[in-house]
Amino acid sequence: MSGFFSANAQVEDSIFIRKIADEVLTNSTAYENLRVLTKQVGARLAGSPQMNKAEAWGEKALKEAGADKVWLQECLVPHWVRGSKAQANTSHPGMRDIQLDILALGNSIGTGSKGIIAGGILINSFDELEQRKNEVKGRIVFYNYKFDSKLVKTFEAYADAVRYRGQGASRAAKYGAVAVLVRSMTHAADNNPHTGAMNYNDSFPKIPAAAVGLRDADALALAMQKTKGVLTIFLKTDAKMLPDVIGHNVIAEIRGSEFPDEIITVGGHLDSWDPAEGAHDDGAGCVHTIEVLRALKAVGYKPKRTIRFVLFANEENGLRGGTKYAEEAKTKGEKHYFALESDRGGFVPREFSFSIGEQQLNRIKKWIPLFIPYGVYDFNGGGGGADIGPLNRNFKTPVAELEPDSQRYFDIHHARSDVFEAVNKRELELGAVNMAALIYLVDKYGL
Amino acid sequence: MSGFFSANAQVEDSIFIRKIADEVLTNSTAYENLRVLTKQVGARLAGSPQMNKAEAWGEKALKEAGADKVWLQECLVPHWVRGSKAQANTSHPGMRDIQLDILALGNSIGTGSKGIIAGGILINSFDELEQRKNEVKGRIVFYNYKFDSKLVKTFEAYADAVRYRGQGASRAAKYGAVAVLVRSMTHAADNNPHTGAMNYNDSFPKIPAAAVGLRDADALALAMQKTKGVLTIFLKTDAKMLPDVIGHNVIAEIRGSEFPDEIITVGGHLDSWDPAEGAHDDGAGCVHTIEVLRALKAVGYKPKRTIRFVLFANEENGLRGGTKYAEEAKTKGEKHYFALESDRGGFVPREFSFSIGEQQLNRIKKWIPLFIPYGVYDFNGGGGGADIGPLNRNFKTPVAELEPDSQRYFDIHHARSDVFEAVNKRELELGAVNMAALIYLVDKYGL
Repeated sequence: MSGFFSANAQVEDSIFIRKIADEVLTNSTAYENLRVLTKQVGARLAGSPQMNKAEAWGEKALKEAGADKVWLQECLVPHWVRGSKAQANTSHPGMRDIQLDILALGNSIGTGSKGIIAGGILINSFDELEQRKNEVKGRIVFYNYKFDSKLVKTFEAYADAVRYRGQGASRAAKYGAVAVLVRSMTHAADNNPHTGAMNYNDSFPKIPAAAVGLRDADALALAMQKTKGVLTIFLKTDAKMLPDVIGHNVIAEIRGSEFPDEIITVGGHLDSWDPAEGAHDDGAGCVHTIEVLRALKAVGYKPKRTIRFVLFANEENGLRGGTKYAEEAKTKGEKHYFALESDRGGFVPREFSFSIGEQQLNRIKKWIPLFIPYGVYDFNGGGGGADIGPLNRNFKTPVAELEPDSQRYFDIHHARSDVFEAVNKRELELGAVNMAALIYLVDKYGL
Repeated sequence: MSGFFSANAQVEDSIFIRKIADEVLTNSTAYENLRVLTKQVGARLAGSPQMNKAEAWGEKALKEAGADKVWLQECLVPHWVRGSKAQANTSHPGMRDIQLDILALGNSIGTGSKGIIAGGILINSFDELEQRKNEVKGRIVFYNYKFDSKLVKTFEAYADAVRYRGQGASRAAKYGAVAVLVRSMTHAADNNPHTGAMNYNDSFPKIPAAAVGLRDADALALAMQKTKGVLTIFLKTDAKMLPDVIGHNVIAEIRGSEFPDEIITVGGHLDSWDPAEGAHDDGAGCVHTIEVLRALKAVGYKPKRTIRFVLFANEENGLRGGTKYAEEAKTKGEKHYFALESDRGGFVPREFSFSIGEQQLNRIKKWIPLFIPYGVYDFNGGGGGADIGPLNRNFKTPVAELEPDSQRYFDIHHARSDVFEAVNKRELELGAVNMAALIYLVDKYGL
């Protein structure tokens, strides 16, 4: 059938998807599951004690949702720890000190117990860094690159700005900088710093790196301008990377009736940054995944293909879970037919983004009218999600990602404000409705 | 041109709308205007001192946004006052009393200073009321009609349930009830009661009426079931209607260059319920209106037609502002070409809803691709909004309404939680972008 359907089938599908929606909108356990995950487990960074607690939670929740079987897939994960609260302040004889509210960036090293005192340098972009590379030596670079407010889809602003978080330290270390501070990737008017992974380029010295919230970033930039480049900054962080530890992907399955060897994966990631509850990132994706399972079972759907529900380990600072899942798929010679991820928050759904052939995409766009009543009005190209990325790269498995509305996402992303209270029950549920509908259609018609 | 445009014009329009969007997303005053309105003026029900304060605020904000002229249009408005905090509790010898958190419904009468003590009767629907009409006399009716969670567009659930708030008192009074309590129209998991207008049918006695939040409603229903219809309820409210007072629509104008006699109206309502800040309802509509004016001026748009920006008086419990605006239009023989309202909150925009001819609607649907980058993906039929309703009914003026995403709206609608903090800056701004784009296209091409 490959994505086509008759008028009769379309009516049948519309009725079936309505049944899924009614089930989710009346009996969903997604919101309550999220409450337990965020409030009873809490932050669950790879390597932390809460990682294991979250795995146990996931195993139980997937069983209760009605999986045929649930198992843990072992993988080594990095074990980065933040240590005590990071500190930073400015000092200058002609100006009151500014105490900065900062968060060390994930994977970064610490300053040592005495901290670092050095002159600050305000750098607005990598272009400016290259122009002023001779001024950087011995200094603390403050990257003040702005999150672009003109980009309506905020993930585009993120893709543009996150380079400073990811590469900023090593690019500055190349020219002799001793530490970096990075303006947070957010539009939020509050002052919360937003952490997230950074990566060292092994060709250059490792230097400490921390995020600064927007109000402090503006104050710091102003102070640096006023003092004409002779502002002193004190920075202290205890962050450090410890040896790898064992973590797990938590996997559930419903066996396919017709093509049991063809695997469809649905997933989100179980780990989350330590300063918050990881409600949107990616508690939402986890409970979406569990709810798709629960709803498909509750409405009595018997899939043709085997459907896997995966809570991935360590998306945030290593992607070891997603990598392991694809590796084992290769070892076992599994046939991965399709994979769907939810890792853009629990906000109201708007689109799905696919990495599949253009012809395939155009063919399945005929399904869009079935989604419009539940808020998804378009299928776009280019998306997929980090955890299922290795499946796509290694086996050309077609992948897709739920795209909820993105306006609020970077307000809370990797910040203290990513808590259960920021999630709306119905918005969360509608994500699961659309995901379950897509899985149903892919399973029924193929791609 | 009537809604059609060449490929060249489409590119030109796309560039112009991008210019509007860039202006709003970088320089908007909507969020700051909303902060001042909600935090410095606050609740502003018709007849209250804050009504006058809000009018002065609106006049100033419209001038600052660049109107050619701003004036006040006088109208009589009702003056309902809530009085001291309403009280209600259950009592039954075999059960602990339940203290109910209630809010008197707008326009309702009070109980007198001693309150009312009467037996309660649980009524789940008007059908049940008719079946049990002989049991109602002398009792307090509790309408426990549920907000339908299966309806994805929550305004449909509201249209379904709001009958109990609007007509419930008189329908129960017809059979001798002495007061009514009404389950709030919301999905919110909190316990906030949601007020809103009720109306008396003059054929029956006027009886007090109050809203109950969801947790209390569930507890009350359970208690009524357990006590098998012999639960006593105490109710006290001081609400009363005072004589009408003078209020105003606040109106601004940019004069049209080519067809100055053809008027396009953009508006929201200035009044708001007393227990909250009226941030979404309808502070958002007011600041949308002002921002459309500011943005069109800022990008240098010279309209062909005259554009009016109206902050309507007394939408909530009388519609006197909207009625007056249409009356004066008739008196003065004004030609109202089109009207657009924002009264569904400041959430992320999704659609526009039009009350215009089907052919007209199909013609302007060609504009939709211009809106998709800013979140509006469809034009539907049937909408319009309360304040511009009289223009549509009296003169068949084509009308439309911004439809933001509705999932969160009834969480806060007419409840204490409708505060500035519930509004997201960018979601609010995107509403103004789409409204300005629609006004531009209607002005340029006609309908």
